[in-house]
Amino acid sequence: MATIGSRLWAIPEGYIPSGGLKGERALVSHEAACILNAGEADAEIEITVYFTDQDPKGPYRIRVPSSRTRHLRFNDLTDPEPIPRDTDYACIIVSTQPVVVQHTRLDSRDPHVALLSTMAFAQ
Amino acid sequence: MATIGSRLWAIPEGYIPSGGLKGERALVSHEAACILNAGEADAEIEITVYFTDQDPKGPYRIRVPSSRTRHLRFNDLTDPEPIPRDTDYACIIVSTQPVVVQHTRLDSRDPHVALLSTMAFAQ
Amino acid sequence: MATIGSRLWAIPEGYIPSGGLKGERALVSHEAACILNAGEADAEIEITVYFTDQDPKGPYRIRVPSSRTRHLRFNDLTDPEPIPRDTDYACIIVSTQPVVVQHTRLDSRDPHVALLSTMAFAQ
Amino acid sequence: MATIGSRLWAIPEGYIPSGGLKGERALVSHEAACILNAGEADAEIEITVYFTDQDPKGPYRIRVPSSRTRHLRFNDLTDPEPIPRDTDYACIIVSTQPVVVQHTRLDSRDPHVALLSTMAFAQ
Repeated sequence: MATIGSRLWAIPEGYIPSGGLKGERALVSHEAACILNAGEADAEIEITVYFTDQDPKGPYRIRVPSSRTRHLRFNDLTDPEPIPRDTDYACIIVSTQPVVVQHTRLDSRDPHVALLSTMAFAQ
Repeated sequence: MATIGSRLWAIPEGYIPSGGLKGERALVSHEAACILNAGEADAEIEITVYFTDQDPKGPYRIRVPSSRTRHLRFNDLTDPEPIPRDTDYACIIVSTQPVVVQHTRLDSRDPHVALLSTMAFAQ
Repeated sequence: MATIGSRLWAIPEGYIPSGGLKGERALVSHEAACILNAGEADAEIEITVYFTDQDPKGPYRIRVPSSRTRHLRFNDLTDPEPIPRDTDYACIIVSTQPVVVQHTRLDSRDPHVALLSTMAFAQ
Repeated sequence: MATIGSRLWAIPEGYIPSGGLKGERALVSHEAACILNAGEADAEIEITVYFTDQDPKGPYRIRVPSSRTRHLRFNDLTDPEPIPRDTDYACIIVSTQPVVVQHTRLDSRDPHVALLSTMAFAQ
């Protein structure tokens, strides 16, 4: 087992387009935080979402078990409330265990597919 | 509240295409610095813009309040002067508080959309 | 010779689309770990692949000689077993020598080409 | 003036497509190292290029003056020799002064435009 990662991550650039291809889930516009927990203990994770002109929302809670990855789509978050579409946001990810976080967006509004990805920022 | 980030950031790759889709703001070619201030104090930020063969411009001043994100489009900067289109540039971002900065470009010259993003470089 | 890099890297975002352009290898959908060994000694590398709901696979073993780069396509891995298509995965890369790792995906399902890339996360 | 950056950088993922749109320089397939020198002294830079199965080439020498950025296209390098097209490569960038380096590719083989970018890896 490898101990790699951080317990505190930030992704400043968040935006879920409301438009795009429909149907096949893989090609629907989405934004994801891909989280890898390569350690021996399960990670309990809290995500807080920040906006331009309103108070933060959350926390959104997820678990990433030991030796597993979870590619979390922000589109799928509903508890405590969905993340608004077509709205600038950002997030802070706090984990009980070291994890590694990568940010990816698939945008199919065009309707051709565009992709972006970057490692999130670790403190 | 989380204290995360740095007070000094650099983005070496800047370029605002003059072409691209018109009309809907979300699909106009643009370049953005997405800034997250997850801390307790408002951040006063100065951006200096660098070029290949002329002196730097700026500073451009913006504020990112506590617990807010701002997705700043370089296209929108006008004070002290607009950033020229179709011109290579770079920038340094200095903040009074720790912030996290991510760089994103949407290029719709094609006119199909292409995206890039990366975390900026923190000192 | 430059000593640069790390012996432990993570890429949380892995996904090999089964669709896309056929024929010319350069435009087939693929995911790559681009590894640079700028040092004086050959690097023996082990890659472990993580999933959402099954145990990790691997290790996959490759060598990157001194002063060489290898742009490894995850699509090409077959020993101990191929990586499943259309499935979320992540990976940990362990090297006997310092190397630098960059993650890239070319997605031609659209069938237009989309690209993403980020430096992997180094411990 | 800000002192920001590193004197040693790596970009593992290099590939210059031979195909793509012709004519307008901005849309020709290209790969760039965007270098920012925000410091007070000019930076003398040496780039060494690595391959999969041949010895490294270079050094390629460029200067980035104080308070300037240079968006260097690998396509344009000719001394000591051009970088081959359609060939995997990587590079190490060594500077006499701290600089910041970002890697970008525009790929117009499709012929629709795809983009990728990431901060290079700093030692």
